[in-house]
Amino acid sequence: MKRKLLFTPGPLNTSASVKEAMLRDVGSRDKEFIDLIRNIRRRLLELGGVSQARGFEAVLIQGSGTFGIESVISSVVPPNGKLLIIANGAYGERIVKIAAGYHLPHEVLRCPENQAADPRAVQQKLQNSQITHVAAVHCETTTGILNPINDIGPIVHAAKRTFIVDAMSSFGAIPISLQNDAIDFLVSSANKCIQGVPGFSFALASREKLAGAKGLARTLSLDLYEQWRGLEQDGQFRFTPPTHTLLAFAQALDELDREGGVAGRHRRYFANQKLLASSMAELGFVPYLQSAVQSPIITAFHYPTHPNFRFDEFYSRLSALGMVIYPGKLTTVECFRLGNIGDLHAPDMHALLNAIKKVLADMNIPIPVPGPVHNI
Amino acid sequence: MKRKLLFTPGPLNTSASVKEAMLRDVGSRDKEFIDLIRNIRRRLLELGGVSQARGFEAVLIQGSGTFGIESVISSVVPPNGKLLIIANGAYGERIVKIAAGYHLPHEVLRCPENQAADPRAVQQKLQNSQITHVAAVHCETTTGILNPINDIGPIVHAAKRTFIVDAMSSFGAIPISLQNDAIDFLVSSANKCIQGVPGFSFALASREKLAGAKGLARTLSLDLYEQWRGLEQDGQFRFTPPTHTLLAFAQALDELDREGGVAGRHRRYFANQKLLASSMAELGFVPYLQSAVQSPIITAFHYPTHPNFRFDEFYSRLSALGMVIYPGKLTTVECFRLGNIGDLHAPDMHALLNAIKKVLADMNIPIPVPGPVHNI
Repeated sequence: MKRKLLFTPGPLNTSASVKEAMLRDVGSRDKEFIDLIRNIRRRLLELGGVSQARGFEAVLIQGSGTFGIESVISSVVPPNGKLLIIANGAYGERIVKIAAGYHLPHEVLRCPENQAADPRAVQQKLQNSQITHVAAVHCETTTGILNPINDIGPIVHAAKRTFIVDAMSSFGAIPISLQNDAIDFLVSSANKCIQGVPGFSFALASREKLAGAKGLARTLSLDLYEQWRGLEQDGQFRFTPPTHTLLAFAQALDELDREGGVAGRHRRYFANQKLLASSMAELGFVPYLQSAVQSPIITAFHYPTHPNFRFDEFYSRLSALGMVIYPGKLTTVECFRLGNIGDLHAPDMHALLNAIKKVLADMNIPIPVPGPVHNI
Repeated sequence: MKRKLLFTPGPLNTSASVKEAMLRDVGSRDKEFIDLIRNIRRRLLELGGVSQARGFEAVLIQGSGTFGIESVISSVVPPNGKLLIIANGAYGERIVKIAAGYHLPHEVLRCPENQAADPRAVQQKLQNSQITHVAAVHCETTTGILNPINDIGPIVHAAKRTFIVDAMSSFGAIPISLQNDAIDFLVSSANKCIQGVPGFSFALASREKLAGAKGLARTLSLDLYEQWRGLEQDGQFRFTPPTHTLLAFAQALDELDREGGVAGRHRRYFANQKLLASSMAELGFVPYLQSAVQSPIITAFHYPTHPNFRFDEFYSRLSALGMVIYPGKLTTVECFRLGNIGDLHAPDMHALLNAIKKVLADMNIPIPVPGPVHNI
C-alpha cells in the first residue's frame, strides 16, 4: 500500500513518532500501563480546561467516536428524561438515530446544514419542561460548520438542564472549557485533533452528573458509569484496552504540548484552512459555507459545473497522486470536502493544491473552474 | 516503559513485523484499505473452515472481545427467544451479565470451574422448548479449561436451536470448523491466537442466521446485522475503523499462514504449554486442572502453601525481571495463571521458568515449593 496524505476528517496523518510509540507490547494490567492511562486521563481534563480537583472526570471508551457518543447518550439520559438534539448535519442526525434506537424520549431542533445552530431557538425549546438534556455537535463534520456551543451551554445551564457536546473533530484544536462553556459531557476521539491513531474515544464529564448515571446504562460495554468506576478503582479498562493505540496517544499528547497546546494547534490548522480556502478560490472553487461559520477543520466545496467533472474520477486521480480527499455527504447539495487536520503543514497543503491543478488539467477542466455563481 | 514478555491471555506479545505494519496511515475509505478488509474477512472464514460460498460471513467489530460478544448476544436473540448459557468461569458469567442487562430471557447451565461442560446436560436442558439459542465458551480463560463445543454443537443443531460460541482465546490455535462443529455464531478477537494487536473483535456467522437478525439489535454501534450490511455494501466499517490495528492484523494472518496455519500454531502452543506444565511440576507447583481438560492456551496453578508466598510480591518481582504473568480470578480457589500464547517460543518459556526460580529463591521459598497435596 502506497503512503498517501490524508485530507479527511479521520483517520488522519499522524507523525512518525506517534506511530513508532506502537512498536511495543505492554500488559494491560501492568503498573506502568496503569500509570500511562491515569496520565492520559489527567491531561485530557487539562485540555478541556478542567481537572479532577474541579469536579470533572475523563473516561476512555474502546471503539470509534460513535461508540463514545452512544456510551454517553445511552448511559446518562434516564427513562423519564427527554433529550433535545440540535442537528444541522449527519452527526447530529446520528445522535437522533441513537436516541430513537433506545426509545429515549427526544425532540430534534433542526436547522439548515449551512446555518449554525441558533442559541435563541434552543432557549425557546427549553420552555418545554420535559426536556432534561440537550445535545449539540460542535464542529459538524458534514459541512465543517462550527456551532456556538459556548453560547448554548450557558443557556442550557441557566435552565438547569444537562449539556452534552459532540466535540469529535474540534477538541484539541479549538479552545473549549467545560466549566466556562457549561458542558456536562463532552465526547471526542483519539484520532482527531490530538493526532493519535484510531481505536478509542473518550468522554469528559462533570463528576456529579456522571455519578448520577449509576444504573442507567442500557449496555454492558458502553456503560459510561461502570467504565469510570473501573478506571478509578484499579486504573484499568474493564475490558481489554487497545494498548498500542494508548501508547500512541500518550506520545500524541506530548507532541500537542510541544506545538503549544490547543492554541498552537489551532494556529496551524487555521493557517492550513486559510491557505486552502484562498487557493481553492483562485482555482474557481466555491465554498459551501460563509466564512463566518466555517471551522478551521474541514471545508466543503461545490462541485464545478463543467461537464467533464465527475467526482469519482477526481477522487481516484488525486488518490493515484497520493492525495486522499473526502467524498461529501450533504443532504441537498453536491459537494466534496477537504480536511486540513492531522500532521499536515503548509507544504502538504501546497502539494494537494498542485495535485488538484494537475488533475483538473488531465480532466480537461479549465481553470478557474466554472462553479455555482452564488454561494448558497 | 521496559520491554517485557507477556504470559497473559492478552494483550500478548506480537512479532516486530506485526507492529511495524502499523507504521503507516491509511484512509479508511480508500480502495486499498477496502481490499484489505475484504481480504481479512475472507481469510477469517477460511480459518473457521468455511467460506462465503458455503453460506458464512465474517463481521469485524470495533472494541475488545466483550464488544464482539455483546454485539452477537444483543443482535441475534429475539425478544421472544430464550438463551441457554453454559458457564464454568468468568467469561460464561459475562454472557449471563449481558443477557441480564438487556432483559433477555435466559437460563444458565452452571458447572464447577474445574469441570468441562457436559453435552448430556445440554441435551437435557434443550427439552425446554422455550430455549432458542445456546451460548458456550470454548476455552474458558478463567481456568484454561477446554469445553467440548464440537460435541455440544451437533446436539444444539439436532434440536434445531442456534449455537453461539465464545472462541476468544482458542480461535486460530485450536482447529474449529463452523460447519462440522455446528456453530452459527463464533466470536474471537484480533489480539489472541492470531497474534494481532488489540482493537477489534470479529464474528463469523451463518449467513442465514445473520440475515435473520435484521432489526433485532438493541444498539447502534454493536448492531451485528447493520455492521455486516455496511461491510458488504461498500466494503467499509460503518464508523471509523482502527486502521493501524487492521494493518497489523493482515500481517499477523500472513505470519499465521507461514507458521502452518492453525495446525502449526497449535503445535507451538501445545509444546509451550507442555514445557511449562512439566517444568512447573518439577518446581512443585500443582496445576488446577486435570490434564484431560487443560487447554494449550493458559494454565492455572495453585498458590504454594509456604508462608512466604504472597502473590503480589511474586507478581512484582517477576515483572521487575521483565516477565508479566496473570493474576488468577477463580471463584473459590487461590490460583495464578500463566499464558503461553502470542509470539512466545521455547526460549521465552525457559526465561520465565528461570525467573520463577530466582524469585522463589529471593522470597526464601524452598524448591520444590510446598503445595496442596492433591489436585482438586
